[in-house]
Amino acid sequence: MIRIALDAMGGDFSPQEEVKAAMAALQKYEDMQILLFGDPAQIKEQISKPQLLKEERIIIMPTDEIITMEDEPVKAIRRKKNSSMVRAAKAVKEGQADALVSSGNTGALLAAGLLVVGRIKGIDRPGLMAIIPTLKGNRPNFILMDSGANADTKAVNLHQFSIIANVYAQQILEIPQPRVALLNNGSEASKGSSLSKEAFQLLNHEERIHFIGNVESKTLLDGPADIVIADGFTGNAVLKNIEGVATGLLGYIKDILTESGLLTKIGGLLIKSAFKKKLQILDTSKAGGAVLLGVKAPVIKTHGSAKAEAIMYGIFQARAMVEGRVAERISHHFDQNSLGND
Amino acid sequence: MIRIALDAMGGDFSPQEEVKAAMAALQKYEDMQILLFGDPAQIKEQISKPQLLKEERIIIMPTDEIITMEDEPVKAIRRKKNSSMVRAAKAVKEGQADALVSSGNTGALLAAGLLVVGRIKGIDRPGLMAIIPTLKGNRPNFILMDSGANADTKAVNLHQFSIIANVYAQQILEIPQPRVALLNNGSEASKGSSLSKEAFQLLNHEERIHFIGNVESKTLLDGPADIVIADGFTGNAVLKNIEGVATGLLGYIKDILTESGLLTKIGGLLIKSAFKKKLQILDTSKAGGAVLLGVKAPVIKTHGSAKAEAIMYGIFQARAMVEGRVAERISHHFDQNSLGND
Repeated sequence: MIRIALDAMGGDFSPQEEVKAAMAALQKYEDMQILLFGDPAQIKEQISKPQLLKEERIIIMPTDEIITMEDEPVKAIRRKKNSSMVRAAKAVKEGQADALVSSGNTGALLAAGLLVVGRIKGIDRPGLMAIIPTLKGNRPNFILMDSGANADTKAVNLHQFSIIANVYAQQILEIPQPRVALLNNGSEASKGSSLSKEAFQLLNHEERIHFIGNVESKTLLDGPADIVIADGFTGNAVLKNIEGVATGLLGYIKDILTESGLLTKIGGLLIKSAFKKKLQILDTSKAGGAVLLGVKAPVIKTHGSAKAEAIMYGIFQARAMVEGRVAERISHHFDQNSLGND
Repeated sequence: MIRIALDAMGGDFSPQEEVKAAMAALQKYEDMQILLFGDPAQIKEQISKPQLLKEERIIIMPTDEIITMEDEPVKAIRRKKNSSMVRAAKAVKEGQADALVSSGNTGALLAAGLLVVGRIKGIDRPGLMAIIPTLKGNRPNFILMDSGANADTKAVNLHQFSIIANVYAQQILEIPQPRVALLNNGSEASKGSSLSKEAFQLLNHEERIHFIGNVESKTLLDGPADIVIADGFTGNAVLKNIEGVATGLLGYIKDILTESGLLTKIGGLLIKSAFKKKLQILDTSKAGGAVLLGVKAPVIKTHGSAKAEAIMYGIFQARAMVEGRVAERISHHFDQNSLGND
């Protein structure tokens, strides 16, 4: 039995979408139990299959505090002890659940992962792994790590991220030999900041990964690598930039098609279905959420505005990580070598 | 008389596009002279108005070396003394010309600016200012500085960039009170790396600029600020990312329109002209080039694949900077205060 702790209160459409996601997820997998943390009345109202409660496949865990998107992360985790997020993280820590899924405040979830679930021994700083769709290339997406868990990063962190993300890519994305690259401002080994130059050397000498060198942010959507390693500040800037440019440009194009003359409008109608179909490539709702890697259990962040489908895939992702024993496999790498500082 | 030193050899379409650009630029301005550095035979072949040579409005400065895109920047500047780029930079240094324009190797041009033209006293590190088009907002573009001159940056550099870019925005873009923002991974003052937190405080206390706080990379194309200050590593990643995502997405959309069924193709034809017209917003050829700011004279980098129009606007930009006495005005700020470390 795989048990998922689901924070049902922190997202933009909570708890409705979380409850829907839980019911849909349980329909697919028999051997799964979901602990729903949040306001019991609101949650109960959304459960259209009361059978799931009777069978204890959904268990409502009553909480009466909510961490909002505006809360200061670490403070919120320390003070709002009875929030849905902290209680869900505690359930994982104490072994009542195997993994944590939340659409709530990203910073708070990172803090909950770090301070409540706890980091794996030997890992200095866990990182946030994002999955980003590609427009070309062999694979539909690539991993960016760290996409924002750490604002300040050392080369040893980048080195550790490469090992950690490699385990995820092998176990969950089923890529036997993931291509690992370093995000840098030039392709040559000599390019970059002092941090990226130092990290290049560490990655280049790491035999457990298939390091293919530097990649520039210009080529990311062409899928030049399966795993792109970045410091959290730059990774976050690039992640949000991809989102912003893609959203901005598609919105601008939509405006052209609706605000222009009659012929353009007709043209717009004719291309609509092809557009819709092809641009599904950018739809991330099936890709799962961002994952805090380097902590003792799967901690998954779905988008703040995630709907039931995206949350359901986040639950599946958490499940796959539990089944694939990702945290244990990561831990194994840091038990046996000198990478860590513990 | 304003005299521009034009490196006629370093770009993808040199010297043809440089010569065309020079002839077009001279047609607009009577009181301008252009020194064309490069292979005399190749340059002469492209000059369709020999009158300009007779009148000494174009002067060919023969050089026999070229810095290629593959050359290691600092090494190339030190060794290829008779390259078009180094000679053009020397002409500026020695007072034969007022400004330098090149489509060549960016790193080499930055090195030429720093090592040959020389930095302004009091400025620790010059920065590369890029002009990026917006999709929304009050203005058609914004300034990003540093977009990649420095891989490693200190808070004092970011502070200096804000003063420097502010002079440019006031003098050249004619924005009386430019909105200056710091690129960060959160909008609150408390967010970010140790570098960005320190820089936030410096910018927030700088009375000579109108600091509006942090901006995230997600909103950049909405034009939230006139000047966005970034460290060169992140700035470069964001700049190249904007370019990559926009190019990738537009290419992908074009493929949808041409590879899909007949109706979509017809639709594609109908929207073509509206698209073409509206997407001119992204055309940067009239915006001028990137500018190395913080050196003693205007040094302008047009795109490696720049055509005559873009280079001509780069020449106009150089001219405007000379007329607006931008370098002197920047220098003035650093003479009178304790910002610099000199």
